[in-house]
Amino acid sequence: MIKAAIVGATGYAGQELVRLLLRHPDVELVSIGSRSYDGQPMKDVYPLYEHITEDICKNRTVEELSEISDVIFLALPHGVASQEVNKDILDKCKIIDLGADFRLKDLAIYKDWYKVDHGAQDLIEEAVYGLCELHRKEIKKARLIGNPGCYTTCSILSLAPLVKNHLIEENSIIIDAKSGVTGAGRNGQLPYMFCECTESVKPYKVGAHRHTPEIEQELSLLGNEEIKLIFTPNLVPMNRGISANCYATLNDVGKQYTEEDLTTLYRDFYKDEYFIRILESRIPDTKWVKGSNYCDLAVKVDQRTNRVIVIGAIDNLFKGAAGQAIQNMNIMFDLPEKTGIDLITDYPV
Amino acid sequence: MIKAAIVGATGYAGQELVRLLLRHPDVELVSIGSRSYDGQPMKDVYPLYEHITEDICKNRTVEELSEISDVIFLALPHGVASQEVNKDILDKCKIIDLGADFRLKDLAIYKDWYKVDHGAQDLIEEAVYGLCELHRKEIKKARLIGNPGCYTTCSILSLAPLVKNHLIEENSIIIDAKSGVTGAGRNGQLPYMFCECTESVKPYKVGAHRHTPEIEQELSLLGNEEIKLIFTPNLVPMNRGISANCYATLNDVGKQYTEEDLTTLYRDFYKDEYFIRILESRIPDTKWVKGSNYCDLAVKVDQRTNRVIVIGAIDNLFKGAAGQAIQNMNIMFDLPEKTGIDLITDYPV
Amino acid sequence: MIKAAIVGATGYAGQELVRLLLRHPDVELVSIGSRSYDGQPMKDVYPLYEHITEDICKNRTVEELSEISDVIFLALPHGVASQEVNKDILDKCKIIDLGADFRLKDLAIYKDWYKVDHGAQDLIEEAVYGLCELHRKEIKKARLIGNPGCYTTCSILSLAPLVKNHLIEENSIIIDAKSGVTGAGRNGQLPYMFCECTESVKPYKVGAHRHTPEIEQELSLLGNEEIKLIFTPNLVPMNRGISANCYATLNDVGKQYTEEDLTTLYRDFYKDEYFIRILESRIPDTKWVKGSNYCDLAVKVDQRTNRVIVIGAIDNLFKGAAGQAIQNMNIMFDLPEKTGIDLITDYPV
Amino acid sequence: MIKAAIVGATGYAGQELVRLLLRHPDVELVSIGSRSYDGQPMKDVYPLYEHITEDICKNRTVEELSEISDVIFLALPHGVASQEVNKDILDKCKIIDLGADFRLKDLAIYKDWYKVDHGAQDLIEEAVYGLCELHRKEIKKARLIGNPGCYTTCSILSLAPLVKNHLIEENSIIIDAKSGVTGAGRNGQLPYMFCECTESVKPYKVGAHRHTPEIEQELSLLGNEEIKLIFTPNLVPMNRGISANCYATLNDVGKQYTEEDLTTLYRDFYKDEYFIRILESRIPDTKWVKGSNYCDLAVKVDQRTNRVIVIGAIDNLFKGAAGQAIQNMNIMFDLPEKTGIDLITDYPV
Repeated sequence: MIKAAIVGATGYAGQELVRLLLRHPDVELVSIGSRSYDGQPMKDVYPLYEHITEDICKNRTVEELSEISDVIFLALPHGVASQEVNKDILDKCKIIDLGADFRLKDLAIYKDWYKVDHGAQDLIEEAVYGLCELHRKEIKKARLIGNPGCYTTCSILSLAPLVKNHLIEENSIIIDAKSGVTGAGRNGQLPYMFCECTESVKPYKVGAHRHTPEIEQELSLLGNEEIKLIFTPNLVPMNRGISANCYATLNDVGKQYTEEDLTTLYRDFYKDEYFIRILESRIPDTKWVKGSNYCDLAVKVDQRTNRVIVIGAIDNLFKGAAGQAIQNMNIMFDLPEKTGIDLITDYPV
Repeated sequence: MIKAAIVGATGYAGQELVRLLLRHPDVELVSIGSRSYDGQPMKDVYPLYEHITEDICKNRTVEELSEISDVIFLALPHGVASQEVNKDILDKCKIIDLGADFRLKDLAIYKDWYKVDHGAQDLIEEAVYGLCELHRKEIKKARLIGNPGCYTTCSILSLAPLVKNHLIEENSIIIDAKSGVTGAGRNGQLPYMFCECTESVKPYKVGAHRHTPEIEQELSLLGNEEIKLIFTPNLVPMNRGISANCYATLNDVGKQYTEEDLTTLYRDFYKDEYFIRILESRIPDTKWVKGSNYCDLAVKVDQRTNRVIVIGAIDNLFKGAAGQAIQNMNIMFDLPEKTGIDLITDYPV
Repeated sequence: MIKAAIVGATGYAGQELVRLLLRHPDVELVSIGSRSYDGQPMKDVYPLYEHITEDICKNRTVEELSEISDVIFLALPHGVASQEVNKDILDKCKIIDLGADFRLKDLAIYKDWYKVDHGAQDLIEEAVYGLCELHRKEIKKARLIGNPGCYTTCSILSLAPLVKNHLIEENSIIIDAKSGVTGAGRNGQLPYMFCECTESVKPYKVGAHRHTPEIEQELSLLGNEEIKLIFTPNLVPMNRGISANCYATLNDVGKQYTEEDLTTLYRDFYKDEYFIRILESRIPDTKWVKGSNYCDLAVKVDQRTNRVIVIGAIDNLFKGAAGQAIQNMNIMFDLPEKTGIDLITDYPV
Repeated sequence: MIKAAIVGATGYAGQELVRLLLRHPDVELVSIGSRSYDGQPMKDVYPLYEHITEDICKNRTVEELSEISDVIFLALPHGVASQEVNKDILDKCKIIDLGADFRLKDLAIYKDWYKVDHGAQDLIEEAVYGLCELHRKEIKKARLIGNPGCYTTCSILSLAPLVKNHLIEENSIIIDAKSGVTGAGRNGQLPYMFCECTESVKPYKVGAHRHTPEIEQELSLLGNEEIKLIFTPNLVPMNRGISANCYATLNDVGKQYTEEDLTTLYRDFYKDEYFIRILESRIPDTKWVKGSNYCDLAVKVDQRTNRVIVIGAIDNLFKGAAGQAIQNMNIMFDLPEKTGIDLITDYPV
């Protein structure tokens, strides 16, 4: 059994880790970590755990946990994880960080977008960007994973085949993405009250969301060229789900790509990927991926304007956070990749 | 492996059966039955099944299915199941009917409330009312189960300990229950459109809902006296969940029962029941049972008016339909009762 | 023009007052009062006021406002209004208090339920309970109005004709009511976050809600006998609206009342009331009263159990708060009662 | 008093016309037209009209209505209005068509996108595209108005200042818009059931929505050059509201435009427009325009990619349909433009 611990277990992503790890056949959950609810039973924080676990939330350091864990999941605000992880810890156990600290490779970009100094600069190089479908080989050997953001997971998976194959103009990408309210975290902030966000659509941080450099880093790496793009997030009145519409101009390569061509390319690119579904006759809708680790993708070509539109959908807390974190753990510990995360979507929720 | 078939698999309850049976470790799902979608892949009807099953919906009779199944689940409109089931079929396989045809023991009451003649009067006596916590012994030996309604499951479990112990006046019961919109089924009716039922609460069939005689039958049986009650259903803008507030006047038994007394009584009554959770410091909220087979209960006493209020909550499609149907199957086939239905609630949905 | 001021204008009820008073043809809104947003333009607090008003929120005392106002609306937490109002102020202007301080006539009951001492005991007798349909004559002459609570408005209007005519057993009343989330106020509390209250029904304060003694006071007064009842509120995932199911046992008066009898009685009782609608062929649904000052009522009789069920629906912020407050103002200032509040419901919202 | 009639009054846009016209101080509503509900009181179709109007829905032809009306509003499926309107009718009364038949000037484009022949080709030239802010002069003299679509109103108003001033590359426009479910109409279709569309975001008709040529026609006209663009609609779980994110590449004009520059340009362009609000410190959110005729706009510049993003928000049934239709009527009949439609948004709904 893999001994797993969670730090920050009472936020939405942390709680999803608890839920999934409690039913993972190869995992023993050794610590449910929480600063805010230190000393309280998890079932008092989330009553759904009544009869399921008697575990008490504990405020333990990563240092302490490294003595009793094979893997520690961190679900913390940015800037915190990098203060807590160091090489000694990595000698003792693996770290999967669901926050932003170990995703970006360029410290200047990190500081520019996150406005804090990075606390563990010596670990940046070692950290592996945990987008399983694109970095599986490095993940297998990694000790430290920067688990991708929710918007980024959906956006990168949507665009990877086009960028890798140089089919689109490098600076033509526009991503318009919609997220459910869990993306804002579990806090008592006014804008996320029921009455404030039901019955409304709200674009926010237009051209300024911190997932932008993360998407650019990975696509630039894939395309082997510098890519700058616009990313616009929108808050919609639902709990879970990310829907991303990714627009780009097709390169002039002497032929007109059709939807069929590109769909075939996508099928081929992801042919060994259990959690990627390429759709043909329908467009991804967040409801069909909710509660699952799937990423649904569809490719459309607008010949009138020579543009391609890729539509992606994931569950932000699952493939966009906890599910992918466990997928990373499965890879790191040589388990079948879908172990414990191969759930069938609840429908309707 | 138990060979299971579903008739009516594309309604909400039927689909929930598909979802749960596909992951049940002891079940092979041999037929996904649908009249409306005959010949179509299940994944076209519910795209969540993409990559999960290639099964095609088929319009097969119960007769045909009895040749290849150990158990058949029926999720059909009332009046249909009783036309299709007979003793020959029961000699070949077990039947779990999620509809109303095999729940009521009194044919006159059936006709009075459902306005049709019963098509299999000779099976009424044999049929077992499948409320697992109250009829486990008979279920174990049954060939034909009338799986309880959603409102009824929640109402009966809420009131059973009081009625069994004769603690309340027999004709003082008032049940005010709220249901999510899945309770109305998957059809294209105007009142259940998003725009028509969001942002609204709608009481309906006040004093006239068909689950009333079902609750009365079971409580009368338990209390060994005739019980008449009022049951009011209310439609609320959510997908799943039933919340029932059950009011009754405490009998004058020479002592004043406290909340603690009655909570202890409930804990004792349900002490061996995995799926019943008696809450003390909080009141059941449908969100904590959604996607699970749990029934949450809390007991309150209003000394000012000498009344007891029991609050119950279940997921109408799970414990209120498909989950309980599988719980019945597990009992009938001597499997551990929670096999395949011991899921942890998705949160937030 | 009536000079009106609001204290506590940035909560949901306060904002609704601003919205309605800005379009009231006989009112000049002289002060939008707020402690939390002192100095900020109303349009920054609620961007809907962009282009509509340039007014700045000001933290003014009732004392100050009494110098420049004909009427002051107070929308404050309980215990605050009674500290601020006194006889000198009432000599200068009228007060309509939307909070709880001037509703209850019995100070012991006030203290028992609200856990604070009352700050203006000398005004209790003068204060008029502002349920317009029942106290119009006193309101006309009043200087100080205790504007009824939302649940209470709906409950009392639902039961008044039965109680007044002694048709029900005095201690048989059970009220099960459902409220939208605006009822919880505009604050940043976790339980009212979108993700926490969408897709759920939550009964709360069972047998312990502070609107209970208010309903009892008014019904006891109407029936000229002491009435004790159970009132259960439930939180449902919608913004506005209260739906109340009111149950009672019919008195044995030598005849069996039918629905037609009682509906006629209700029509008669409310025959001069513009804002009361007695429905016959349908049951009140909150969507049809949202954004209006109407109270919809329907009466059902369950002959099987000899009970009457009255179903009421109002908009909690309109007839349940700001709309009724303005209705009171209209009465006090001899305006046509529906002036400025005769809006047609937005549909769908 | 202007005598107004509505044909198709029981759909969502038609009902909104009824609601607004009943309170319009200069209008007498002479006919509530409906084929589906012919002979039924409007209050039975929409119970909100209880006590408000006793009018009966009638199935009258445009021909008949032209004898008794000064203006007829048509809210009909495409292809129907053009069969019913002709020059004789226009000699007798004015027509405001909320459908698609009189919006497009190029019959080939109409046929290409709508797949039907146009039934009144001789009226195309005379018809005026009723986007009030851009065609006020022609509207003033018009007899026949093609009232713009909801998505188009929001998109064109968002982009007009940029296109008119040639600040963006003509073929760089991408519009990603989100609509509430009322946009799908009031019908009993499965995809628009509560359980099917709550908790989900669904992009649809990607690159193929019929509002595309309408936006292109108007922007091409404004910019005096042919413009082709991509328009993607998305269905989100709310009732009303359209949010449009409009992306374009800034022209190389020898200077770098800032957000301040462009915001000033927008303020200037719309300086006389009561219903256009240019926001500076916040981004349009559909909740702040719901139930009003406002169009909120904000301009953002992404210097990293040299793109401008204009965010627009309207209420699809109000400014996107019925409100704008009445605004057109006000212009045509020389009334103050905001008469009867200057409502303050209900908040929260």
